[in-house]
Amino acid sequence: MHNPVPVADKLRSDAPPRIDGARLLDRLDRLAEIGAGENGGVTRMGFSEADREARAHVARQAVEAGLTAAVDAGGNLLIRRPGGHHGSGRPPVLVGSHLDTVANGGRLDGAYGVIAALEVLQTLHEAGAETDHETIAVAFANEEGSLFPQPFWGSMVFAGRLDALPSEPEDYSGKPLREALARAGGDLSRLASATWAPGSLTAYLELHVEQGPVLERLDRTIGVVDSITGRTQLSVQVHGRAGHAGTTPMEGRRDPLVVAARLVDAVQALAREEKLCRVATVGRLDVRPNSPNTIPDLVRLDVDLRDSDPARLRAAERTVRETLATLARAGNVRVSVDAGVRTAPVQTDPAIRDAIAASATELGYAQLTLPSGAGHDAQIVADIGPVGMIFVPSVDGVSHVPAERTAPDDLVAGAEVLLRTVLKL
Amino acid sequence: MHNPVPVADKLRSDAPPRIDGARLLDRLDRLAEIGAGENGGVTRMGFSEADREARAHVARQAVEAGLTAAVDAGGNLLIRRPGGHHGSGRPPVLVGSHLDTVANGGRLDGAYGVIAALEVLQTLHEAGAETDHETIAVAFANEEGSLFPQPFWGSMVFAGRLDALPSEPEDYSGKPLREALARAGGDLSRLASATWAPGSLTAYLELHVEQGPVLERLDRTIGVVDSITGRTQLSVQVHGRAGHAGTTPMEGRRDPLVVAARLVDAVQALAREEKLCRVATVGRLDVRPNSPNTIPDLVRLDVDLRDSDPARLRAAERTVRETLATLARAGNVRVSVDAGVRTAPVQTDPAIRDAIAASATELGYAQLTLPSGAGHDAQIVADIGPVGMIFVPSVDGVSHVPAERTAPDDLVAGAEVLLRTVLKL
Repeated sequence: MHNPVPVADKLRSDAPPRIDGARLLDRLDRLAEIGAGENGGVTRMGFSEADREARAHVARQAVEAGLTAAVDAGGNLLIRRPGGHHGSGRPPVLVGSHLDTVANGGRLDGAYGVIAALEVLQTLHEAGAETDHETIAVAFANEEGSLFPQPFWGSMVFAGRLDALPSEPEDYSGKPLREALARAGGDLSRLASATWAPGSLTAYLELHVEQGPVLERLDRTIGVVDSITGRTQLSVQVHGRAGHAGTTPMEGRRDPLVVAARLVDAVQALAREEKLCRVATVGRLDVRPNSPNTIPDLVRLDVDLRDSDPARLRAAERTVRETLATLARAGNVRVSVDAGVRTAPVQTDPAIRDAIAASATELGYAQLTLPSGAGHDAQIVADIGPVGMIFVPSVDGVSHVPAERTAPDDLVAGAEVLLRTVLKL
Repeated sequence: MHNPVPVADKLRSDAPPRIDGARLLDRLDRLAEIGAGENGGVTRMGFSEADREARAHVARQAVEAGLTAAVDAGGNLLIRRPGGHHGSGRPPVLVGSHLDTVANGGRLDGAYGVIAALEVLQTLHEAGAETDHETIAVAFANEEGSLFPQPFWGSMVFAGRLDALPSEPEDYSGKPLREALARAGGDLSRLASATWAPGSLTAYLELHVEQGPVLERLDRTIGVVDSITGRTQLSVQVHGRAGHAGTTPMEGRRDPLVVAARLVDAVQALAREEKLCRVATVGRLDVRPNSPNTIPDLVRLDVDLRDSDPARLRAAERTVRETLATLARAGNVRVSVDAGVRTAPVQTDPAIRDAIAASATELGYAQLTLPSGAGHDAQIVADIGPVGMIFVPSVDGVSHVPAERTAPDDLVAGAEVLLRTVLKL
């Protein structure tokens, strides 16, 4: 844009290397087969068998390309070029995203950023490019938190937020993370070995599908992310008293589903009508024992609040807690609330934004600076270094669903901008 | 009570035979081990592996006692005395209940009536008692409908309500009943072979725990059931549009969980506040994909309505359907409603009531005539013959939960009354 930097300055060879677009798209197709559902959806919940298979698949591709692959104690997959091909002295540039998905999610969310990072590394390697810093590709573990309810698990370990993690995490069915992590090559007892210190990165770059409608509506190919939304996820338990649906009089019932249902309605009203935060959603709700003939004894649900203003997020959380307390008294049930995750809004680094914008301009792609409505590992890594994010358009703005899609040309464009930005930094 | 009938008249031997109480209680203990959960609960959902195991277990006990056991095409287990020990000419007396449970249910609901029926048959057999009619014990298949959403499956087949059954039933996860039924010894293609004609039974007797608080509060040992509540179970599907919880604006969302939540609240209000029917419950609710980060695309829930007045039941159902349609328009979602089961309230047979009451009096047990708030196979069998039901007290009135319990003396008392009633008929 305003500051085009001559690429050749950063390279020992004359022409900047380019991404192999066909290989990128082919790799995305092949990755989407792992955990594929019948309607085009992908299910690779973090630390599930499909997730492990996807990580092993990508690691194998890296090794076949002459790169090295290793898993840290938190389960993050790190891919590097073998020694001697890069400068030293400056801290590394980290490039990546995550391979896990939500249940029946899309094929691009996370996966695109990891495969593009692999392509960047392989392209640099094949070109024999020597850069001022080491470039490392990463697949952060369990970004979605769909099975083990700790989103951003891998990036939290990486950025040293160990105090914020439960000591013995369990999945939604009570199975320990310790074993699943070990099967993925991690080690719950040695998480500290996987943390990176503040200042140890030159930059973290994450390429991702927008997951919203803005780029498509405005016909831009590249999004330069200026901020990432803050998110508070509350894990709510409502304990009532089970009973037979036919013989338990209405008076004296302590039905947790009735209370949970009122909370679901109050949560959406909090964003839609009261405008306390930008969006508010209940996407997960579990009933126990979940029998048509039985008043439940326990309902668990997750409340997801998002806003780019931390004060508004706090106010929305306070309202959810107060509303729940009022509903619990009226319904004669016992409730508890845990903050599953509470991420502050994050600004991306201005110099990285400039480098992304300049790269897009050089490559001839129309661009837009915009905020991210979704959470990303980048907002966690921002604890320890400057971060930047590149978006490409999502068809119809949908994500976390089988219909999640981005035009092939846009996928290649995003990877080209990622490579060029790595070279610029 | 008013009409004590001399028992000896019905018997070739002098003293009426008595139940082996210790054996009854021991068998209940052993049966409760099949499908046992960690907190004392039992999970033997109809046509599950645990259910099949329980049925095989009871069939084995019958054969070991010198009785015969067979499974009809609907999956009902029928136990008979070998030929020659009973009168002919009069239609049989059927005695029994069901062996399947809800998820994490109690050890007595259904199981007690089947084990007591087995005891009755074994006692008659061991005493060499000859009765005017054949006595048959039955374990009806899938009374609860917890896995395959067709409660009263077995008794509906038995009573010839084949038109009301889906032709290719599936469980909640879409697995076909056909295969599960075949594994249990039934045959979906031959259901008609398992139906009994109207008039083909002298009586159907079902012994059951009350599942409510009345007998305990009034300190009565035996309940003589005068009517069984009617029940309408509606299976509701709410189809919305999935999306990312962080990037999908509140305006334009089509969130099926918000609509389902409002319906849950409206359903309980319909009984508690508007008094349209006696009780109204949502006990089952499933969210797809059920991810904290995703607006759901589909919510399925079951609405359970009960009343002893068919007109009130119909009015309540109409209100549920109208409310749902209104909510669906407001939430911009698509809904569908199927009547999973619609059972009319049923009166038990006066002559059988008298026989039960007289038996309890002769045996010295305090008794009470009362309605049943829960549904039972007896209300289906009433289509083809006179039915009677005997209740024993439920501790704290609870059922369908691990804490479901009845005092051992009361369990033996119920079986004694059942045996004496069989002899009187």
